[in-house]
Amino acid sequence: MDHTAGGYSPDENSPVIGVLEKIREEVAGLSGGRVADYIPELAHADPGAFGIAAVSAHGRSYCVGDTGHAFTVQSISKPFVYAIAVEQLGLDVVHEHVGAEPSGEPFNAISLDERGRPENPMINAGAIVTTSLVESAAPAKRFERIRSVLSEFAGRELEVDEDVYRSETETGHRNRALGYLSLAGGVLVGSVEDAVQDYFRQCALSVTVRDLAVMAATLAVGGVNPVTGDRVVSQRTARHTLSIMSSCGMYDRAGEWGLRVGIPAKSGVSGGILAAAPGAFGVGVFSPPLDEAGNSVRGVAALERLSDDYDLHMLQMPAEPPSPMHSVTRDGTRLEVRLRGEIDFLAAEQVVSRLAEAIDDSRVKSVSVALERVSGLSDAARGLLAAELTELADAGVDATVSDPRGVREP
Amino acid sequence: MDHTAGGYSPDENSPVIGVLEKIREEVAGLSGGRVADYIPELAHADPGAFGIAAVSAHGRSYCVGDTGHAFTVQSISKPFVYAIAVEQLGLDVVHEHVGAEPSGEPFNAISLDERGRPENPMINAGAIVTTSLVESAAPAKRFERIRSVLSEFAGRELEVDEDVYRSETETGHRNRALGYLSLAGGVLVGSVEDAVQDYFRQCALSVTVRDLAVMAATLAVGGVNPVTGDRVVSQRTARHTLSIMSSCGMYDRAGEWGLRVGIPAKSGVSGGILAAAPGAFGVGVFSPPLDEAGNSVRGVAALERLSDDYDLHMLQMPAEPPSPMHSVTRDGTRLEVRLRGEIDFLAAEQVVSRLAEAIDDSRVKSVSVALERVSGLSDAARGLLAAELTELADAGVDATVSDPRGVREP
Amino acid sequence: MDHTAGGYSPDENSPVIGVLEKIREEVAGLSGGRVADYIPELAHADPGAFGIAAVSAHGRSYCVGDTGHAFTVQSISKPFVYAIAVEQLGLDVVHEHVGAEPSGEPFNAISLDERGRPENPMINAGAIVTTSLVESAAPAKRFERIRSVLSEFAGRELEVDEDVYRSETETGHRNRALGYLSLAGGVLVGSVEDAVQDYFRQCALSVTVRDLAVMAATLAVGGVNPVTGDRVVSQRTARHTLSIMSSCGMYDRAGEWGLRVGIPAKSGVSGGILAAAPGAFGVGVFSPPLDEAGNSVRGVAALERLSDDYDLHMLQMPAEPPSPMHSVTRDGTRLEVRLRGEIDFLAAEQVVSRLAEAIDDSRVKSVSVALERVSGLSDAARGLLAAELTELADAGVDATVSDPRGVREP
Amino acid sequence: MDHTAGGYSPDENSPVIGVLEKIREEVAGLSGGRVADYIPELAHADPGAFGIAAVSAHGRSYCVGDTGHAFTVQSISKPFVYAIAVEQLGLDVVHEHVGAEPSGEPFNAISLDERGRPENPMINAGAIVTTSLVESAAPAKRFERIRSVLSEFAGRELEVDEDVYRSETETGHRNRALGYLSLAGGVLVGSVEDAVQDYFRQCALSVTVRDLAVMAATLAVGGVNPVTGDRVVSQRTARHTLSIMSSCGMYDRAGEWGLRVGIPAKSGVSGGILAAAPGAFGVGVFSPPLDEAGNSVRGVAALERLSDDYDLHMLQMPAEPPSPMHSVTRDGTRLEVRLRGEIDFLAAEQVVSRLAEAIDDSRVKSVSVALERVSGLSDAARGLLAAELTELADAGVDATVSDPRGVREP
Repeated sequence: MDHTAGGYSPDENSPVIGVLEKIREEVAGLSGGRVADYIPELAHADPGAFGIAAVSAHGRSYCVGDTGHAFTVQSISKPFVYAIAVEQLGLDVVHEHVGAEPSGEPFNAISLDERGRPENPMINAGAIVTTSLVESAAPAKRFERIRSVLSEFAGRELEVDEDVYRSETETGHRNRALGYLSLAGGVLVGSVEDAVQDYFRQCALSVTVRDLAVMAATLAVGGVNPVTGDRVVSQRTARHTLSIMSSCGMYDRAGEWGLRVGIPAKSGVSGGILAAAPGAFGVGVFSPPLDEAGNSVRGVAALERLSDDYDLHMLQMPAEPPSPMHSVTRDGTRLEVRLRGEIDFLAAEQVVSRLAEAIDDSRVKSVSVALERVSGLSDAARGLLAAELTELADAGVDATVSDPRGVREP
Repeated sequence: MDHTAGGYSPDENSPVIGVLEKIREEVAGLSGGRVADYIPELAHADPGAFGIAAVSAHGRSYCVGDTGHAFTVQSISKPFVYAIAVEQLGLDVVHEHVGAEPSGEPFNAISLDERGRPENPMINAGAIVTTSLVESAAPAKRFERIRSVLSEFAGRELEVDEDVYRSETETGHRNRALGYLSLAGGVLVGSVEDAVQDYFRQCALSVTVRDLAVMAATLAVGGVNPVTGDRVVSQRTARHTLSIMSSCGMYDRAGEWGLRVGIPAKSGVSGGILAAAPGAFGVGVFSPPLDEAGNSVRGVAALERLSDDYDLHMLQMPAEPPSPMHSVTRDGTRLEVRLRGEIDFLAAEQVVSRLAEAIDDSRVKSVSVALERVSGLSDAARGLLAAELTELADAGVDATVSDPRGVREP
Repeated sequence: MDHTAGGYSPDENSPVIGVLEKIREEVAGLSGGRVADYIPELAHADPGAFGIAAVSAHGRSYCVGDTGHAFTVQSISKPFVYAIAVEQLGLDVVHEHVGAEPSGEPFNAISLDERGRPENPMINAGAIVTTSLVESAAPAKRFERIRSVLSEFAGRELEVDEDVYRSETETGHRNRALGYLSLAGGVLVGSVEDAVQDYFRQCALSVTVRDLAVMAATLAVGGVNPVTGDRVVSQRTARHTLSIMSSCGMYDRAGEWGLRVGIPAKSGVSGGILAAAPGAFGVGVFSPPLDEAGNSVRGVAALERLSDDYDLHMLQMPAEPPSPMHSVTRDGTRLEVRLRGEIDFLAAEQVVSRLAEAIDDSRVKSVSVALERVSGLSDAARGLLAAELTELADAGVDATVSDPRGVREP
Repeated sequence: MDHTAGGYSPDENSPVIGVLEKIREEVAGLSGGRVADYIPELAHADPGAFGIAAVSAHGRSYCVGDTGHAFTVQSISKPFVYAIAVEQLGLDVVHEHVGAEPSGEPFNAISLDERGRPENPMINAGAIVTTSLVESAAPAKRFERIRSVLSEFAGRELEVDEDVYRSETETGHRNRALGYLSLAGGVLVGSVEDAVQDYFRQCALSVTVRDLAVMAATLAVGGVNPVTGDRVVSQRTARHTLSIMSSCGMYDRAGEWGLRVGIPAKSGVSGGILAAAPGAFGVGVFSPPLDEAGNSVRGVAALERLSDDYDLHMLQMPAEPPSPMHSVTRDGTRLEVRLRGEIDFLAAEQVVSRLAEAIDDSRVKSVSVALERVSGLSDAARGLLAAELTELADAGVDATVSDPRGVREP
């Protein structure tokens, strides 16, 4: 077991480790599923291998089981190569070449929409097109660019498993067919064989569950690797990537997954699943036997358990939304409001709504707003706050703002 | 314009009203789209009518445009009847009768999966089955049960538009066909004509954009109507309903919607869209002209604008997750941690991780945890905290908890 | 065994009986297949029952095996009800309501084309529409009309098996669904329940293999029942019906059937198959166990054998096409051509081509054409012959025609 | 106009020429349709070019319009390459690699059945597989084998249009995709690029309408080119080829074609249609503008007219089937039956049925059967006749057969 490499390492006695151990033990007993064999080399996987890793938004990692076990990333590479293309070309250009709708079909389906685009970038056809979009100094350097960015996501240098790559290139005729269809549809860029080769290489990158957890956490917190502290993609690209994973990541089980787990995720035929609970955790699971939809049997069960027992479903709302107000005090005719944390539009609505009450409260003559504890102010929040201060002034209420950190500056 | 009825009403000068007005003005210029005519009565709609309403998690409502305009709820009834069925029968029983996957097809598609179930409860076939599942004292009272719960979601008594209902019952042969297919598949309960009639009635309930916004807000905050304060469905049912809306609510544009808007939503052919930003806002929009996918052209544009400009995308993460720690102070050998708000697993992980540092810090001999400001503690958080307190005790650190509100009691 | 009823009956020693017996014995050993149970009443069928009947173009019938065994006609009624509708309304009107393409799908598929029509009249949806098209003095008399014409095809009064009819009406919800879809598509005439009831009744008509063979023979010889001598439908309607059976009669095995058997046919879930070898034989086979495509296992095998061993494939050409010339003699300068049989365009082309040689042959001064043995002359043949006679006259060859039967009169 | 090359040439005054001229004139006025442009080189075709040719079963050819105009054969090559593969490998082996069912989809559809086979050999995917099956001394000689056999069908040496071939190889990525899918499905033999190149070459063979008519006539009369007199494929292979054309030759209009025309046919995107009326005529038509299904607008209209006006529908039965009896005479106690033409099973049934009457007729003591005019006797007919002669002997009727040509020898 290795949960120390490359980042802050909580002691093994952390109760979070205990939580993961309990899930792993419960789920390990599950039999059923079949190890993938459509790439001959994958058929050699140990069906008993099983590991889980979680990395928090602050970069703390928790790993249990076979966490040193390396396997090829396969389809889990797809959201990350999509992220590279979106970061380079923007959302609109990428989606001129590939759709964004769940196909309701298996991963290797021939799903081209009425515009000749593969249905989405999470099925093979769409992923090959996405790979073909990645820009680099020279065609021959494209894969190096992909490998390099995926390594930044993982926080360490990832390498190709040459045996799996070779096995895939020898038998991947269906993927070549998908490439030619996309070329005929006018959406694949460059040569089919080049795109397919780079796609086979990206699928053959070797990872551990901890790598998956760090990669997931990087998306979950908005594009900054929480272990290395490096920004890998913009917050917006990270959000787009989570969106695509959310709608198209689990093949033809997107709806069921959304209902039962509710964490944007991506699975691969080698038995890995990567899940990114927004703002919370990145999780990686590995266990080779797959269900009929091509998802790891134990991986799915572990994530269902994790989501259900530990409130990780992204639509699970706290009974009370977090308040942006650290304190609100009235002292005679003076109302003092101290704010805290990140103030976005939602938080600002609460603030301006509270300030507006001062206008109707004849006892209040002045208002002071303290921003010392505010870590950030979104553009929308800034606008709302400024408009309310004008309202107060118009109503004859004296308003002052203390902003020593200058968060009101755009 | 009416933004006062039935709840807290911010003054018209609220800058939030200004935000909605600005969006309404920008979007009102959009032409294109066609008013639905497949139910003859719908073809009479005023294509120029346009209103937007938003209701906050605290029940404050903001309305602009034609907010007094009544229209039939149509398919927007589907998630709410699904919520009734899930509340009555549980998720598993409901999904023995209807699937949970996006169909990638139009709303009136004949999408039965390999088990004979309609693909999901947001297409007509699935919605008719869901309606047939609702339990009541007698078959004849089923619709009254549906009307009554939808009224609780809206916070006022909703009534059927008899003209639209009649128009629908005379021309709804395709829906009868879907009902018979589901009966033949063994998933519809009772008589097809009864189910179809109740379905036509629920679609013909008359609402305003403010009704939609309140209904959405009730889902967005976990099942309690934020205007009336009444719990309508459990938090879990609300979450399931948001999940289904998220994957299947926007017909064959689920993926695009997730990417561009990212707010669980449901549209109806009369031109309404209901969107529930989890933990934040309920939004209702109405404008009859529809795009090819059957969604209101201006409604989609308004929600794209709202999501984009005001950070309502559910995967838009704040740069810094909200901290559960109101304050952390060390005074000599004593570490005092004051917590606040709702403490879930994610928050608890931050707390126990901070407390664990005390074990490694030889200067700290005692720890006090103050729960005065904590509004709730999830089961998972409670377990994590208890385990860490045991860890501290084992390490010889004296730990005390002040919990005057008793939030540690399950 | 009964091969005497209602027509010329060859003695049991006929070598044709021997041929059928040999096939029956070879095929009887085939196991496999399942008796249909989707209509509960059908599940009671005796899986061992097996009979074959053949009726020649001249009305001679040959029957072997369980030929007295009665069973319900089921889908085999479809081509005959199609024939009624085509006879009443014409081909174009009928096909405004139903398509003519093989659906490549099972018999109960929901195959509506882009115009809202069921794909073809041999799948259930299309057959229900066809039934709805049949005209009668009053809606309540429609089924009596259908029963009456099918009885003319069979040469005896057919009756409804009430148990099967009742069983079908209680469980036929999928067929009701297909009816409502067609009503919604604007192609079904009248009430869905009326159409479906008449469809269930027509499917429940009770027949024997000999009935099937006579019905098939009636189509095979162009619409005249060869046993009773009564014309049931026009030659053109019979041809249209054979065409539809040829392309759509064997469900999703039309191509395979065309390749291996090549006889227009229709099968039913009760285990019957009717096959009409154009100009040659009508065949009926009955054996309840069905293959996956819903065709009788032994029935298919028997017809494959019959087609293969006895040259019944409709594209099996004789090495030498039959000559229309009974004799051609030249006596000095006089050429005498005696014709025989039916002279169609193809035959006429041979005749005029032979006559044209006379023009180039300087020895021939006069030509005589004898039509004594000619049983009929098609319009096209008549035109061709007349044109050639003009050619001869223009070339100075004296031409005379003897036509005592007046076949040259239109 | 050229209707003389390479065979018997009727004078231009033949009334058959008149028939074709009339059809050509009526149809020439049809506008509508679009010249194919998906292969750039095809877009250069003259939309006004229009020719019709017919070749009779005896090799007489009739040509009108632009009959010297050369065009590429395109998809019309498919049935002939299928014929080569069936002739070499047998029906069963070929259909392990490709299905036999109409796909109900366009020519370039991706229709693989559940066994990984293209749906049929008339769609591109299936044709590429069929090409890959053709055996030759060396892979590089495969196309020469194809060209050589197609030339035998046409009765002259066909050559590749190099411009069209080049154009196709540069843009045929969709066909490459279909090839890779078939390779992945395990049904394509050898290299995809080799198969696709040979397929492009066979499509680029240059022909005239008269070539098409001769090729069609060769199939129509059972595999012997009626102009050259050479056997090209066996009678059985010709029948299989006509069967496949019948069910799958006209893309997604097989059923409509069967109903309205009823002649096995194959069309190509360059605007040609080849039709083979079994036992009667081969027809070739050329006019580039295509309808939505990809069939020549004028070509379809001309063949509908020809079938309808001139009784060429293969299910159009003569009112009276041709009799195998040249004469039947009774002279005292002696019955003399003179047979003629090809005697198959159907004819034999008539004969034995007539002979059987002699047993019941006490006046008849001896029977003589004369085979002088019989050109052939099928195995089935031979068996039936022998059995009946035994019956006669058993009944004490003296039977003699005169068979100077020895047709009773197998």
